[in-house]
Amino acid sequence: PPYLDLDRLEARARETLEASVYDYYAGGAESETSLTEAPQAWRSWRLRPRVLRGTTADLATTLLGSPVATPLGVAPWAYQGMAHPDGELATRRGAAEVGALMTVSTSANHTVEEVAAAAPASPAWFQLYRQHSPEHTADLARRAGDAGYRALVLTVDLPVLGRRRRDLRRDFALPAGLRMANHPAPDDRPPLSANAHPSWTFDDVGRYAELSGLPVVVKGVLRGDDAVACVRAGASAVWVSTHGGRQVDLVVPSAHALPEVVDAVRGETAPDGSDVEVYVDGGVRAGSDALVALALGARALGARAVFLGRPVVWGLATGGADGVAGVLAGLSAELAHAMTLCGVAGPADATQDLVVRAGWLPR
Amino acid sequence: PPYLDLDRLEARARETLEASVYDYYAGGAESETSLTEAPQAWRSWRLRPRVLRGTTADLATTLLGSPVATPLGVAPWAYQGMAHPDGELATRRGAAEVGALMTVSTSANHTVEEVAAAAPASPAWFQLYRQHSPEHTADLARRAGDAGYRALVLTVDLPVLGRRRRDLRRDFALPAGLRMANHPAPDDRPPLSANAHPSWTFDDVGRYAELSGLPVVVKGVLRGDDAVACVRAGASAVWVSTHGGRQVDLVVPSAHALPEVVDAVRGETAPDGSDVEVYVDGGVRAGSDALVALALGARALGARAVFLGRPVVWGLATGGADGVAGVLAGLSAELAHAMTLCGVAGPADATQDLVVRAGWLPR
Amino acid sequence: PPYLDLDRLEARARETLEASVYDYYAGGAESETSLTEAPQAWRSWRLRPRVLRGTTADLATTLLGSPVATPLGVAPWAYQGMAHPDGELATRRGAAEVGALMTVSTSANHTVEEVAAAAPASPAWFQLYRQHSPEHTADLARRAGDAGYRALVLTVDLPVLGRRRRDLRRDFALPAGLRMANHPAPDDRPPLSANAHPSWTFDDVGRYAELSGLPVVVKGVLRGDDAVACVRAGASAVWVSTHGGRQVDLVVPSAHALPEVVDAVRGETAPDGSDVEVYVDGGVRAGSDALVALALGARALGARAVFLGRPVVWGLATGGADGVAGVLAGLSAELAHAMTLCGVAGPADATQDLVVRAGWLPR
Amino acid sequence: PPYLDLDRLEARARETLEASVYDYYAGGAESETSLTEAPQAWRSWRLRPRVLRGTTADLATTLLGSPVATPLGVAPWAYQGMAHPDGELATRRGAAEVGALMTVSTSANHTVEEVAAAAPASPAWFQLYRQHSPEHTADLARRAGDAGYRALVLTVDLPVLGRRRRDLRRDFALPAGLRMANHPAPDDRPPLSANAHPSWTFDDVGRYAELSGLPVVVKGVLRGDDAVACVRAGASAVWVSTHGGRQVDLVVPSAHALPEVVDAVRGETAPDGSDVEVYVDGGVRAGSDALVALALGARALGARAVFLGRPVVWGLATGGADGVAGVLAGLSAELAHAMTLCGVAGPADATQDLVVRAGWLPR
Ligand SMILES: Cc1cc2nc3c(=O)[nH]c(=O)nc-3n(C[C@H](O)[C@H](O)[C@H](O)COP(=O)(O)O)c2cc1C
Ligand SMILES: Cc1cc2nc3c(=O)[nH]c(=O)nc-3n(C[C@H](O)[C@H](O)[C@H](O)COP(=O)(O)O)c2cc1C
Ligand SMILES: Cc1cc2nc3c(=O)[nH]c(=O)nc-3n(C[C@H](O)[C@H](O)[C@H](O)COP(=O)(O)O)c2cc1C
Ligand SMILES: Cc1cc2nc3c(=O)[nH]c(=O)nc-3n(C[C@H](O)[C@H](O)[C@H](O)COP(=O)(O)O)c2cc1C
Repeated sequence: PPYLDLDRLEARARETLEASVYDYYAGGAESETSLTEAPQAWRSWRLRPRVLRGTTADLATTLLGSPVATPLGVAPWAYQGMAHPDGELATRRGAAEVGALMTVSTSANHTVEEVAAAAPASPAWFQLYRQHSPEHTADLARRAGDAGYRALVLTVDLPVLGRRRRDLRRDFALPAGLRMANHPAPDDRPPLSANAHPSWTFDDVGRYAELSGLPVVVKGVLRGDDAVACVRAGASAVWVSTHGGRQVDLVVPSAHALPEVVDAVRGETAPDGSDVEVYVDGGVRAGSDALVALALGARALGARAVFLGRPVVWGLATGGADGVAGVLAGLSAELAHAMTLCGVAGPADATQDLVVRAGWLPR
Repeated sequence: PPYLDLDRLEARARETLEASVYDYYAGGAESETSLTEAPQAWRSWRLRPRVLRGTTADLATTLLGSPVATPLGVAPWAYQGMAHPDGELATRRGAAEVGALMTVSTSANHTVEEVAAAAPASPAWFQLYRQHSPEHTADLARRAGDAGYRALVLTVDLPVLGRRRRDLRRDFALPAGLRMANHPAPDDRPPLSANAHPSWTFDDVGRYAELSGLPVVVKGVLRGDDAVACVRAGASAVWVSTHGGRQVDLVVPSAHALPEVVDAVRGETAPDGSDVEVYVDGGVRAGSDALVALALGARALGARAVFLGRPVVWGLATGGADGVAGVLAGLSAELAHAMTLCGVAGPADATQDLVVRAGWLPR
Repeated sequence: PPYLDLDRLEARARETLEASVYDYYAGGAESETSLTEAPQAWRSWRLRPRVLRGTTADLATTLLGSPVATPLGVAPWAYQGMAHPDGELATRRGAAEVGALMTVSTSANHTVEEVAAAAPASPAWFQLYRQHSPEHTADLARRAGDAGYRALVLTVDLPVLGRRRRDLRRDFALPAGLRMANHPAPDDRPPLSANAHPSWTFDDVGRYAELSGLPVVVKGVLRGDDAVACVRAGASAVWVSTHGGRQVDLVVPSAHALPEVVDAVRGETAPDGSDVEVYVDGGVRAGSDALVALALGARALGARAVFLGRPVVWGLATGGADGVAGVLAGLSAELAHAMTLCGVAGPADATQDLVVRAGWLPR
Repeated sequence: PPYLDLDRLEARARETLEASVYDYYAGGAESETSLTEAPQAWRSWRLRPRVLRGTTADLATTLLGSPVATPLGVAPWAYQGMAHPDGELATRRGAAEVGALMTVSTSANHTVEEVAAAAPASPAWFQLYRQHSPEHTADLARRAGDAGYRALVLTVDLPVLGRRRRDLRRDFALPAGLRMANHPAPDDRPPLSANAHPSWTFDDVGRYAELSGLPVVVKGVLRGDDAVACVRAGASAVWVSTHGGRQVDLVVPSAHALPEVVDAVRGETAPDGSDVEVYVDGGVRAGSDALVALALGARALGARAVFLGRPVVWGLATGGADGVAGVLAGLSAELAHAMTLCGVAGPADATQDLVVRAGWLPR
């Protein structure tokens, strides 16, 4: 693939989008310290390449039983219709084109079923928020199971909506007429905070697994103790995330929470008896970042994946399905390249000795 | 409450106040390294949020027996008449409006009794400096007890006045006619350093407790050994503070002295047999800073509180009592929000495992 | 020698060279983080000078049996014909003039034999890439042995060409007509990536030693385990390098990989029974950097050397053979000076206690 | 004393002096990294003030038997005639005025005896370089003893002159006619490097003690092992210094070498059976810096002192003897103030627990 310049891509997206929409996508909570820190945090690690391995990297792996061409997936993000008329459908097609997994947000502008149908052959997961009533939420979980999603992702870091400075300053509201496809009618323009409710507890993990008949991934876990509690409550995987720095400011970055989480779940088993999988997202902006992430997750016994938020946003905003595919292909190529340069044969070969903390960093 | 933008508030206060008064309020000692470092120091810690706790935070707590609606209180600061005609009276009313505790400075422009009477139903503490003669000082302590204050705060980090660069450069003097309400007449425009005298020792702690009949808080403690000595000398609480970076420059910031102090007093008991309380101030500028502070103080067994200096100054200067209430309510809302996002039910639930040192910080 | 101002030298080279060529020489992989970090990394160490040693430094040493006047050598770099019409011949003569060792790249614009003949009395090494076919590569190794080179340097950190942002952005190609002297005819303008092939394994080390009849140096090693594996596979020396930050971005810098490598090979023996030698390059820009490098390599029992890439590029581009000699003499003088100031008699006297990690660095 | 603004003072000195002279005074070796780092290094420590000590600081102390009013002394610096017509005589008078010790450089523009006579009642030390011949140097040592100096300071960090970038760039030479008062005639305008000779060894320590009949201080020690060797060779005190960052660049700063040195000499005894004294200089620019230095030196059993170089240069250049007195009085006042604020009664009461490494510093 041609050289992927994410900075330039973001700059182009910024020109394309309305300022308030761009800020909604790009912004973070409070002082945006965690937003800024997320990419830097990957870079507080350094790679220790292996030589003379005579090998070229192959990115293919299997996530919760579904084969994918790359360990880089699409994180769930809301209201994709503001970025492109085809919204989630375009993202889905772009991801499918390059064999990447997409996680579809509850806050989508197309329904559970519509997005499922956009690329039925390729695996996707559905991300669940507590939506209006518990009943409606349970219904969404069931529909996700029926529609052929391969897993249900419970996002647990949004008991209340984060205080996003940019949105608060300009009192941001979703554009009139934006379709809230998974909301109960006629509430098609709810406030941004409508998805937030602090009611969920660990019991909900097993409950939604049962309701949907799908393996459950808990997204937004940043502590080892919580990760273990999630697995014991019925999760098949945990997803380390700060929600893109949009919820708690001054939160421990994914790049430093991940080692703790993988160490904690090392002895645990998923409900179906297989190894617990651990995923991560937040500030991954280069192939080398992703390789650091895979290596830091290496002590987990199950498969690993790295999810991308904003890079996909900019891809969709600037190029629709092709833009999404371009971003995923570009970063996957960078990752494969970094792996080959480090003598790493594939995702499972990215062992922990591949990274070292850059404790010497003077600035 | 509406979005609180402290930077903008300070900018507005700067426009309102005379430059020399603004600098007196904003400035710090010598190179102002400690002034600048104080807020950064909270941000050298990171939060480790808990998920799936199904809880919403409640800020109410009890400080030395007085119930308050928020663990955020008003630190004592001098000469509030320069910021607003109603001075301490306005601050008192603003704090009472939102159920926050106010500490009233000796260097007030209204008397001990006048400030007490401004909001009699709501709890307040009186902060004592060694004022002119020991006799006059003892008298102030007695008057504080009589006027219904709930505690006496001995500020011990001012044996001599700090060398504040901005004030020294312009040879700052208090405005003519500013009423020194707690000074012995007719000395109503004493030099700024009149409150400073290096004579106090640990013996004074018990002595003022007796004189006032009030529990004594020692303010300005930064070492574990000193904290223990204060408690053994009769203090009910210690208040970790660098005096807003106005006294010793290059001093250990509160955010790094606090853990040592709470660990040291853990085994100690207040004169009335209850647990020692530990408070902190200095550079707290966001809800997340306050949550870090509460968590760092968690190993203390008694109640905890976080006090605010300059944010309240800017609130008073720009909006009088309403401005004070606005700052306290705004920061309390941020704190409650951060707590809910971290699965923390209230001040006492902010345990130490909630924070981790950001040792990875490259810059 | 007169004062050597490397920054000014680079600025002059930048004016002289075409922008694309300058960028090819100066640039690094991906985000160029490792490129930038390399010189800083030496400066994350500090020197601990010895006093009252009554000694003046002498730089002479012996590398793989060849005496040299300075432990600073010329790292292999490609396509020197773009910097100066005489290319490698000029570099060779400049290095010989000051008694420094030159390593000649496979990607030279003069043949193995031509460069050998340019300064036959002075020692040189030949650096080998896998070139087109294994047969042609084997042939190059044999020719290097025949032409009188004293060692074969296998560069192993280029299984694929690094993604160099500047070159990718402008789609850089070598100038038409640039002579690929060691390529099989008529392929005289291959893409930059033609030297890269991920096929080499540890077995190749011994194989090329045999083919060439020369001691083998493995260049591009950054881990202790790999260093040991290289020696056990038949290497006489390992060369710690990040390839000038041109291959893996976010790689551990040489200044922090070196201690691990020397510790690892400490117990190992070269094929001829002598001590393993350890060399290093990357971001050395001052005599004090080189002294840090020698001290960090001190636990190796064999001889040590420090190689220079870009400083020599700028020397060649601005002054031909004289420019190369000037850079090598200038940095050697700085190194000797730093040694004398530190009470160090020569390269072998630069013990590890001479350096300490600057862990206190605030910025 | 009035507020001392060192930055402003230096700015005024810069206006007063010729650019080349200013640069000679202000500059450092090579990249000037160590020059810049010296003051920052003190600030990588933080103070831990003690409260309720009821004490005001008294700066008086005794150095090698001579009582001084302040532990802040004047470091030896060369060619003071370029800063002020009265040169060393003015500095001497200024120091004596405030009871501070002056160390007089060999490279003075007035003779050993002239400077001695300028303030005969107040103690001074003579700093010795190896000057031209060993015989002439021995003669200087003897003359220093005869002239009533109280100690001989051997500066050992100048085996060769440091490479000072600014001077090298403009090929700086001393002004014609500047009197080299301690040089053998008629060589009155020797190159700057004439004082440098790498011949001294530890044996010279005892030899010069004998020749001069004075206690010997070894200046320029940065390692514990060297410090012990100096004492065992006959030194009564060691002086931790990087020569103002003018010799080795990237050297360990005084603020981090000092703890190692004091720990090493703790068990050692001076030739006369008394405790070894430890002094320090380099980048001390504020009272708090000096207090950190005294505290870091606390584990030495003998007296401690802190010397000032450039601040005195700027004082002399802008105000002659009064300027020198002003700088010494101003910084002493700052130091006394910082001590009182920290509950420290005097130099000997500045114990090591007064400081903590600011390991949290994010930037
Ligand atoms: C605009 C935007 C909307 C998001 N919406 C959701 C969402 O609906 N559900 C969810 O679980 N996470 C959501 N996230 C968080 C992402 O899933 C992901 O954790 C984050 O974007 C990763 O960080 P990155 O953007 O730095 O790659 C959103 C993120 C962004 C930027
Ligand atoms: C203008 C000003 C005046 C102050 N006056 C007093 C005072 O009279 N008594 C006292 O104990 N502390 C005083 N302080 C210190 C505050 O109580 C508190 O420790 C400090 O302001 C907290 O830091 P912050 O301003 O960063 O929140 C003062 C602080 C300021 C800024
Ligand atoms: C323009 C350029 C071309 C290079 N070509 C080669 C090469 O052909 N073979 C090789 O082993 N290393 C090559 N290198 C890497 C150098 O040998 C060396 O590792 C690196 O330049 C050292 O870092 P420095 O430039 O910071 O001193 C090249 C480096 C540069 C800058
Ligand atoms: C202009 C200048 C000249 C100096 N000359 C001498 C000297 O003749 N002898 C000596 O022992 N040290 C000399 N020094 C070093 C000082 O004694 C002292 O170590 C240094 O200045 C302390 O650092 P500071 O300038 O940051 O305070 C000189 C320093 C300067 C700045």
